[in-house]
Amino acid sequence: MTRRYLIGLDYGTESARGVLVDADSGEQLASHAVPYRHGVMTRLPDGAALPPLWALQNADDYVEAAREILSALGRDRQIEGIGLGFTASSPLPATADGVPLSRLHPGEPHAYVKLWKHGAAQAEAEAINARGGAFLDNFGGKLSAEWLLAKAAQMAEEAPQLWRETERFIEAGDWLVWQLTGGETRSLGFAAYKAQYAEGAGYPDGIVPGLADRLSAPRRVGTSAGGLSAAWRERTGIRGQAAVAVAVIDSHVVLPAVGGVTDGCLVGALGTSAVYLMLGRAFRPLPQGIEGVAFDGSVRDLWCYESGQAGFGDTLAWFVKTFPRAAEAAENFRLYNEEAAGLAPGANHLLALDWWSGNRVPLADSGLSGLLVGLTTGTTAAGIYRALLESLAYGARSIQDLFIAGGFGIDRLILSSGLARNNPLLVQIMADVFGREVEVPEIDNPTAVGAAIHGAVAAGVVADYPEGGARFGARAFKTYRPDARAASVYAELYRNYAALAGDASLRAAMHALNRIGTVR
Amino acid sequence: MTRRYLIGLDYGTESARGVLVDADSGEQLASHAVPYRHGVMTRLPDGAALPPLWALQNADDYVEAAREILSALGRDRQIEGIGLGFTASSPLPATADGVPLSRLHPGEPHAYVKLWKHGAAQAEAEAINARGGAFLDNFGGKLSAEWLLAKAAQMAEEAPQLWRETERFIEAGDWLVWQLTGGETRSLGFAAYKAQYAEGAGYPDGIVPGLADRLSAPRRVGTSAGGLSAAWRERTGIRGQAAVAVAVIDSHVVLPAVGGVTDGCLVGALGTSAVYLMLGRAFRPLPQGIEGVAFDGSVRDLWCYESGQAGFGDTLAWFVKTFPRAAEAAENFRLYNEEAAGLAPGANHLLALDWWSGNRVPLADSGLSGLLVGLTTGTTAAGIYRALLESLAYGARSIQDLFIAGGFGIDRLILSSGLARNNPLLVQIMADVFGREVEVPEIDNPTAVGAAIHGAVAAGVVADYPEGGARFGARAFKTYRPDARAASVYAELYRNYAALAGDASLRAAMHALNRIGTVR
Repeated sequence: MTRRYLIGLDYGTESARGVLVDADSGEQLASHAVPYRHGVMTRLPDGAALPPLWALQNADDYVEAAREILSALGRDRQIEGIGLGFTASSPLPATADGVPLSRLHPGEPHAYVKLWKHGAAQAEAEAINARGGAFLDNFGGKLSAEWLLAKAAQMAEEAPQLWRETERFIEAGDWLVWQLTGGETRSLGFAAYKAQYAEGAGYPDGIVPGLADRLSAPRRVGTSAGGLSAAWRERTGIRGQAAVAVAVIDSHVVLPAVGGVTDGCLVGALGTSAVYLMLGRAFRPLPQGIEGVAFDGSVRDLWCYESGQAGFGDTLAWFVKTFPRAAEAAENFRLYNEEAAGLAPGANHLLALDWWSGNRVPLADSGLSGLLVGLTTGTTAAGIYRALLESLAYGARSIQDLFIAGGFGIDRLILSSGLARNNPLLVQIMADVFGREVEVPEIDNPTAVGAAIHGAVAAGVVADYPEGGARFGARAFKTYRPDARAASVYAELYRNYAALAGDASLRAAMHALNRIGTVR
Repeated sequence: MTRRYLIGLDYGTESARGVLVDADSGEQLASHAVPYRHGVMTRLPDGAALPPLWALQNADDYVEAAREILSALGRDRQIEGIGLGFTASSPLPATADGVPLSRLHPGEPHAYVKLWKHGAAQAEAEAINARGGAFLDNFGGKLSAEWLLAKAAQMAEEAPQLWRETERFIEAGDWLVWQLTGGETRSLGFAAYKAQYAEGAGYPDGIVPGLADRLSAPRRVGTSAGGLSAAWRERTGIRGQAAVAVAVIDSHVVLPAVGGVTDGCLVGALGTSAVYLMLGRAFRPLPQGIEGVAFDGSVRDLWCYESGQAGFGDTLAWFVKTFPRAAEAAENFRLYNEEAAGLAPGANHLLALDWWSGNRVPLADSGLSGLLVGLTTGTTAAGIYRALLESLAYGARSIQDLFIAGGFGIDRLILSSGLARNNPLLVQIMADVFGREVEVPEIDNPTAVGAAIHGAVAAGVVADYPEGGARFGARAFKTYRPDARAASVYAELYRNYAALAGDASLRAAMHALNRIGTVR
């Protein structure tokens, strides 16, 4: 029997990574990463500077990376399916046959991909929010400036000529699928979470003039967008059906690789910031503060509720960079973790609010800031570091508690990412603060493997996501069990955290501090 | 004409220091310091350990230091007056002829001097406060565990046999004056501030059984307790009248050396903690939160209101020790000050509550703790250091504001101490936060020189404290003027400080943090 393979692609902010997986044994055989030629652009290719808050990418960089990765992993191999995860919302304007406007107008900033973290559409988001509408009901009543509607509005207003020329306004992930297959097939994941598309209602109406004509109906995840085109087969040497799955939001695509395929899973990805995805078979109204929900947009047959912490690993990185004990970050973390692990829960007598980068859930307020209380002349640096670890756990628990208050049953709590695998002290504190078992999947390149599982579903290699997860996803999980004594101390500390987080006068002080010295 | 001199003695926590001053020119000629042989005792001389919170001293160490200092500075000189400042309340039990019980019972902890910071009489202070009484009206309604009444109560309860043997319960400063002159003369300063003595009413009645018989009527500051005794003249070689002034509380004795001799002066001594003394000719009811007041107990003919911050220099020392940039504390301060000085007011977008060591005024709550808010991943270590400097200034201003609200006019704000002289950034921030001129006296050994001025008044070398201050005190003051722009930024920040300081839910969280993990 010919050996069969899958390829999973993970398009992140700075680079793309691919993995090659054996479609029968499930073994991960190789990986290959390519940084984008233009990275996150702060200038146009002609050298022109971009305004503040802008963050662009060049669509052709994605094609270049795909060619290199697919060739490296797939040449002369029987590839059954290809899946890809992609940052979102990262839309670009294109012609009706998929030519990005940046190829036609390389000197026009609005002709490029507006990367997810492009922050210059805040005014447009606020204007849309001020008008409001039922389409926001599943999104906490509020559009983010990072989402597609705000970015389209910015382009329509600031570059009307270019907007007229735009025949498709499309997520970069969908655009890349189009390039690979030769036909436009949009993902329900992007459409639902980032463009507020809903089954039946379609895309929201009349928000940005002419936008509806530039979008198209999406397909649920795990759908094949078609096989790899003849041109790409020639370019990469790939053989086999090579069914390309519709693209998936990068933070969601990991789910089937880490066990997130069943009702009652809460899956956290602990990175620079943290994302928590709650999976449920039945629809429930969005709990207060939770940011978005869609069905069939992440894995099949499940509602996936999205929430997160604005800051997570960045807060720890800030601490060890600001108060270093060694030249290398890794050594700093090792030293601080070692000392902090020696402290009993509560022994630092400190409490922090984890708002160094603002708060996403439930307050959706980027103007909030971090707080540290309990400081005395006996406080140690490691005590503060541990208070930061603890505060991140409190913030995460407050999200879990919103789901529980909303009627969700939580059967599994899964924490993925490098931080979860590399910082057992952090994960143990989270288990103690949650007062429940935490599972950390032991798998390399989980995001790209998740994408490969989407490819497997699209290609029919497996019948569904649970089968795909079982064959290709993590086979081992490290389980952290809460310590009863620690859990009881943290239960008391968490009550105090919740009280401070709910203190309106504190938030008023934080807002006042932002304005200090800036209004003269 | 024979040259005439004064000697001032400053009995601190760890050592005693003396200065020799020319009684005519006012020139400071020499100084001499002696550490106490037994320091702050954590064990008895026989090696027995003391219970937690105890802090004792050996009275004979004071005599030994006096002999060395007076000999070094006074031998064969015509000494007109001797004054001394002393820590308080630091009482000891003695016989009717002044023999400390520690000489008779060296194995009894209660036979020694209970140093001001002896903290083991808290229960007794609370019991006295629970009963209450009019004698507390001039002391914020509350006795401190550091004061004489609580320490006497502890001894009477825990060592009844030794208490029966105690014929005098006397402040160590008064006891040393007794040793030097051969007769018991108590100071109104100690009696009023530390034993709640009031003109007319006398010592409070019936608080500690038998205490009244062990005290005696005090004399106002600047009174001569008599000349140095013949034995001491022989021992030290001192000639002249050598009038010994009644002792003065160490934090008060500095006043005439730094300009604190007139109505409307607010004098701050910035040390490990900070003391602020407000001088007024007319009596006003104690402003809410101010800790004590007496007339003629600090300098003559003025009411002196006492208040302070529980933590000051200790908070800065904690920061540079916890987050060092260099091995030496002085170099750490230099580096942090240099970088913090480069930040504009408000540029750190941080706010701290200066409660690292609790709060003395107005909350009298040692269970409070420090708070830092406004933290982001852009926060720098120097920004935090500057926020600490600023918080100390806000705490100081909140004390000034209590006096102003109480109807006091403030004509001069004087900040003394090494910290005030060595940290111009701190003093400039204080001027900006207060929005008023701050004067820093340029004088060495101001406490000992202040004591010498008391000696000069007692000896009749000068007619009064203003004349003594003019002749012997600081001749130059460095003036810090507020910057209008900085003052306006700080006015806004101070409003936020005051709001946080008044937030009861924050204080509840601080108290909860103290208990965390300790009650199981």
